[in-house]
Amino acid sequence: MYSLRRLPPLFINAHKLNAAYSLSVPTTRRSMATMKALVYAAKGKPTLEERPKPTILKPTDAIVKMVKTTICGTDLHIFKGDVATCDTGRILGHEGVAVVEQVGNSVSHFKPGDKVIVSCITSCMTCSNCRQGMPSHCTDGGWALGNTIDGTQAEYTRIPHADGSLHRVAETASDDAQLMLSDTVPTGYECGVLQGKVKLGSTVAIVGSGPVGLGALITSQLYSPLQIIMIDLNEKRLSLARALGATHTVVSGPNVVEQVMQITSGRGVDTVIEAVGIPATFELCQKLVAVGGTVANLGVHGAKVDLHLEELWDKNITLTTRLVDARSTPMLIKLVESGKIQPEKFATHNFAFGDIEKAYSVFGAAEAHDCLKVVVNF
Amino acid sequence: MYSLRRLPPLFINAHKLNAAYSLSVPTTRRSMATMKALVYAAKGKPTLEERPKPTILKPTDAIVKMVKTTICGTDLHIFKGDVATCDTGRILGHEGVAVVEQVGNSVSHFKPGDKVIVSCITSCMTCSNCRQGMPSHCTDGGWALGNTIDGTQAEYTRIPHADGSLHRVAETASDDAQLMLSDTVPTGYECGVLQGKVKLGSTVAIVGSGPVGLGALITSQLYSPLQIIMIDLNEKRLSLARALGATHTVVSGPNVVEQVMQITSGRGVDTVIEAVGIPATFELCQKLVAVGGTVANLGVHGAKVDLHLEELWDKNITLTTRLVDARSTPMLIKLVESGKIQPEKFATHNFAFGDIEKAYSVFGAAEAHDCLKVVVNF
Amino acid sequence: MYSLRRLPPLFINAHKLNAAYSLSVPTTRRSMATMKALVYAAKGKPTLEERPKPTILKPTDAIVKMVKTTICGTDLHIFKGDVATCDTGRILGHEGVAVVEQVGNSVSHFKPGDKVIVSCITSCMTCSNCRQGMPSHCTDGGWALGNTIDGTQAEYTRIPHADGSLHRVAETASDDAQLMLSDTVPTGYECGVLQGKVKLGSTVAIVGSGPVGLGALITSQLYSPLQIIMIDLNEKRLSLARALGATHTVVSGPNVVEQVMQITSGRGVDTVIEAVGIPATFELCQKLVAVGGTVANLGVHGAKVDLHLEELWDKNITLTTRLVDARSTPMLIKLVESGKIQPEKFATHNFAFGDIEKAYSVFGAAEAHDCLKVVVNF
Amino acid sequence: MYSLRRLPPLFINAHKLNAAYSLSVPTTRRSMATMKALVYAAKGKPTLEERPKPTILKPTDAIVKMVKTTICGTDLHIFKGDVATCDTGRILGHEGVAVVEQVGNSVSHFKPGDKVIVSCITSCMTCSNCRQGMPSHCTDGGWALGNTIDGTQAEYTRIPHADGSLHRVAETASDDAQLMLSDTVPTGYECGVLQGKVKLGSTVAIVGSGPVGLGALITSQLYSPLQIIMIDLNEKRLSLARALGATHTVVSGPNVVEQVMQITSGRGVDTVIEAVGIPATFELCQKLVAVGGTVANLGVHGAKVDLHLEELWDKNITLTTRLVDARSTPMLIKLVESGKIQPEKFATHNFAFGDIEKAYSVFGAAEAHDCLKVVVNF
Repeated sequence: MYSLRRLPPLFINAHKLNAAYSLSVPTTRRSMATMKALVYAAKGKPTLEERPKPTILKPTDAIVKMVKTTICGTDLHIFKGDVATCDTGRILGHEGVAVVEQVGNSVSHFKPGDKVIVSCITSCMTCSNCRQGMPSHCTDGGWALGNTIDGTQAEYTRIPHADGSLHRVAETASDDAQLMLSDTVPTGYECGVLQGKVKLGSTVAIVGSGPVGLGALITSQLYSPLQIIMIDLNEKRLSLARALGATHTVVSGPNVVEQVMQITSGRGVDTVIEAVGIPATFELCQKLVAVGGTVANLGVHGAKVDLHLEELWDKNITLTTRLVDARSTPMLIKLVESGKIQPEKFATHNFAFGDIEKAYSVFGAAEAHDCLKVVVNF
Repeated sequence: MYSLRRLPPLFINAHKLNAAYSLSVPTTRRSMATMKALVYAAKGKPTLEERPKPTILKPTDAIVKMVKTTICGTDLHIFKGDVATCDTGRILGHEGVAVVEQVGNSVSHFKPGDKVIVSCITSCMTCSNCRQGMPSHCTDGGWALGNTIDGTQAEYTRIPHADGSLHRVAETASDDAQLMLSDTVPTGYECGVLQGKVKLGSTVAIVGSGPVGLGALITSQLYSPLQIIMIDLNEKRLSLARALGATHTVVSGPNVVEQVMQITSGRGVDTVIEAVGIPATFELCQKLVAVGGTVANLGVHGAKVDLHLEELWDKNITLTTRLVDARSTPMLIKLVESGKIQPEKFATHNFAFGDIEKAYSVFGAAEAHDCLKVVVNF
Repeated sequence: MYSLRRLPPLFINAHKLNAAYSLSVPTTRRSMATMKALVYAAKGKPTLEERPKPTILKPTDAIVKMVKTTICGTDLHIFKGDVATCDTGRILGHEGVAVVEQVGNSVSHFKPGDKVIVSCITSCMTCSNCRQGMPSHCTDGGWALGNTIDGTQAEYTRIPHADGSLHRVAETASDDAQLMLSDTVPTGYECGVLQGKVKLGSTVAIVGSGPVGLGALITSQLYSPLQIIMIDLNEKRLSLARALGATHTVVSGPNVVEQVMQITSGRGVDTVIEAVGIPATFELCQKLVAVGGTVANLGVHGAKVDLHLEELWDKNITLTTRLVDARSTPMLIKLVESGKIQPEKFATHNFAFGDIEKAYSVFGAAEAHDCLKVVVNF
Repeated sequence: MYSLRRLPPLFINAHKLNAAYSLSVPTTRRSMATMKALVYAAKGKPTLEERPKPTILKPTDAIVKMVKTTICGTDLHIFKGDVATCDTGRILGHEGVAVVEQVGNSVSHFKPGDKVIVSCITSCMTCSNCRQGMPSHCTDGGWALGNTIDGTQAEYTRIPHADGSLHRVAETASDDAQLMLSDTVPTGYECGVLQGKVKLGSTVAIVGSGPVGLGALITSQLYSPLQIIMIDLNEKRLSLARALGATHTVVSGPNVVEQVMQITSGRGVDTVIEAVGIPATFELCQKLVAVGGTVANLGVHGAKVDLHLEELWDKNITLTTRLVDARSTPMLIKLVESGKIQPEKFATHNFAFGDIEKAYSVFGAAEAHDCLKVVVNF
């Protein structure tokens, strides 16, 4: 098994590094400490294990004690074996609200005791990609947590580049709301709303009323488009979308294009947000987009799709893809604080961390449980 | 034949309209006048015919006497029957340098005798699409000339919305250079360079070294990218591309991706311009584009293509399509006038208008004749 | 007097032109028709006079029958003699809701009977400035109505370049609301909100709670800034500002800067909108703006101001001036139609057109009458 | 004197901090080391002194050994007592090419031996201002070197936030060229060209042909404007401007506005760059700017200026101020490497570091010596 064979040398190594960089902490005692963690043990098998508590490896690291975490659709993909970069043995999770436990000696914006949002993207802020506004492709970070390094579904997490990757919570806002700012809301906002150029007076269609689609829904409204059309197979999710501000909802089916064209007086839609990730929904998006419009892809696609350039070549269309950069997080925190967005409404289920395996099973059959996001409490 | 059955009533109609709007012109005499015109008689059959000289139909029209015209790849598509909007019987041509012969009574920027560039796009400038910066989708224009109305491969052409569709030539620049501003250069510039966001210090690859690709090449340089890589099967065209400013050229073949990655130190290319219009070249573009980059489509595609979202979903990529809007034409005229671009170099062959059928045959086998653009002189 | 000496030849001229262009209208009878009009007879003297009804002079003209008009602060400036371009004898007014009475033969978007908003800016849409997005500086238009040509405070008005200068009303929205779209709201929006780059999560201060400042207030909110601070001397106007969505109001006075700094946690304000037009308010704006922020000027200034470059040179500040272009009007109509903005709330007083001299006297002492905008009904 | 009273405790402190963070370096020996440094001893008195060699104070620091430095106009301002933030006793200088000597333990992009450009702006890249693209206003940096902390006119310099503030040189480009990338060229580019929105086909005027104005000149050309008009009192500097690419030069004098209007066919100038910093030149800029244009301020102003809002309020003008952010430096290095810009041409005089007092005296009377930038070699 992974942990038996590989952990000891890594552990020793970490211990040594820690001794070198972080003098004031009694590392000997802490290095013996263990914690509970949800591990990608094997395909289809979320397993709660005992693991060594993480330690500072670099002066830019922080160790945080988790307060809340959640499960992302991408975690389910990992358990299907779809995410090649994530090896078995990995502690999963890239979302969370936490309290800073310890910081490396070059961390300047955080100190032990600070309550923080853990961004799903860790970023050095100084590499070429970070400087070009793409922390998602940070050459020493990006989507690492719960993927290429251990993540947040554990009692403690090591956060690399803490100054670039953590954000102090708004004290007056709820933890549940801010938990949604690790990934769900910034993904909907940055990859859907910003890339899709949602704007004042325009029209928006969102294909897929899951958490990320709803993240796009609640942030789209901040730009005051005239119409936001939510499309999904699930009527309950559409009902929630209406409650969250969709001006129109359409049950996906054979005449969905016709219905959207009727809503938009035949023009089609200025911004179409793909929030599912399969060829059929991407195909739909191409049929909905207006001349001069944009299709912004949020979906994690596992297969190629058809692009109808024979129809679109002269339609002045833009298509975009993006991994969340989490550059908007400081602003999103203020929006939550001011009440302009209420993403706590996405939190439909609560579990104690000890029950996270059960949380996986509920989230894995989300629609059957009328589940959007599960909150896992430590 | 088309002209026998349908022209007489149309002609009478035009005559009446003309009488109503344009009082000072002796319409009776003119209505008898005929001219030579290149007609899409049937698939594969460019035919020089005698046609009635056009007359003012609306007060916003101008009649221009052609000085030079040229043939576009799209004209060849029409003769293959690929362009559904273009009926047989149509006078083709959407490019030209001309002299204004007559103007409707609401035309304010032009008067008889003015030498002008005819834009391939005619635009009212006041409809909803024009107001949103898309004259290409003008609700009373767009690509109409030589498509849905008679075009410029004739001794005279009627230009709707003359104030929005004509541009006075720079007197000190050559007609050949300015002929390329009807379509070739603005298409390369607007749909390739602007949509592709070519910028200072970036890298550019252009797939397809034909006239429009070369239009993108000469206008890309105005933004001072560090590298412009031209890719084509034809070594002669690549040689011309080098002469026109390409920093690198790559002969298309099995290791083209590898070569481009080597040129760009493995990063890929910031702006990839597709200037061919077939699935294979669009596929190549997707392999060349860097994280955060743009693929700008110029090609006129007749079939759907594969889009590898399974590779691109997290790469922060933008894909664009566009029909030329010709909004840049006034500025491009100044660039030609100042010598900053020399599109007259695209003019490889000259024909008298009486020989336009022959010009079609040479342009139809352009590579065999080392031909880029043919200039047809009246 | 102006009208005695100059009108007769002009009138004959117009008559001739009309005969030439617009055949179907019985011009002889109409040319005798007169109407009531508010004339800038002399400094300080709004005078209701009998004037000839206007006629079509160019094929791009429309004649509209006024339904509602209003008075602008600029009209008051004219009566003070501050507007050098406006001669005595001029019919004033550049705002209005009207019904199209007659159109020149090249007007294509409007026909008699259409109910329209008259834009304060008339624009050809094809000149170099219009093409660059500045209809405000149209070489054959711009602010002409009620300035260099007769305006809308009359029973009928001639609108040049009707296709570029009129907008069909939303039938389901009130005339009063749409009357505010001639000038008040687009000026606040374009010159304040757009130039000031109001954006999601930012802070805004508006100095001056008059109609145009309130136009900026109601349109700022569409971008979801976190704070909108309205500053004025008049507490009643501030009270209205709160009702219209200001998050904070500050009574102008010695410690206004201190108060704003407190509201913004010492950062200053991202977008400061100057909506008064005197040196003291512009001075205040410079003290309020945050590092990286923008001061957008709406005020019509009659004197130079001090610019504190010794303070601002390194503060990454932007200052903007602008005359409204009215490019946003089609979108603003949709916003009114959807209820997203309710500018009818600016209409505090109603007058019959016969009482327009009284309307001037009330509007001229607006604050004493708790007046924002007067609606003048025909 | 400064160093007697204040240095000892600071030094001890540094020594202790250094011991804590940077274990592998024999700090005891180094702490005794001294070096030569140019000190702002008192107004008007550049003094070469012996100073302790700097040491690592924070894990994000680097110590660099200077190879080349230069003198900036701002340094002259300091010696006039104009820069309130800079105390006497300060080692001056914020420009330089250097070799990394030692790095703190969290510096990841640089190692001893790397040859680097020292940016005049040091930036943490993670504070709120850095995240908003304004490293110039970094809350733990900005313009600190040679102002609030010791600078680069010394044998060694401590660089805070080395990962955000240093840039590896292009090995194939000259040190002299790259020395100009510390401040001169990025200031001209970012604050002049970018803020001024120089663009393809537009017109540019630069008021002031000193080093920063020339930095704007050579980078303006990369955007291919049609005209670049350089204005100065000094004909030799104008002659150099012509050699560096100015299309027109105008000797400042009573008819300068008239001359520029003639060059621009009466339109005025799209981008006017103020590169002097006095009221008279800012006044001139306002007279030159075209409707819709921008005045970008580069000058360091010591006094307020007149802003003619009574002329400009309706002219759609933008005015900008900015401190250089040095975000463009990585790109500018590539431009130097590729030969697209040759800022080494600004280096008119060379001095050994031992003669830096003499260099100050020459640069202080730059025009008398036909001097642009002095290069000081270690």
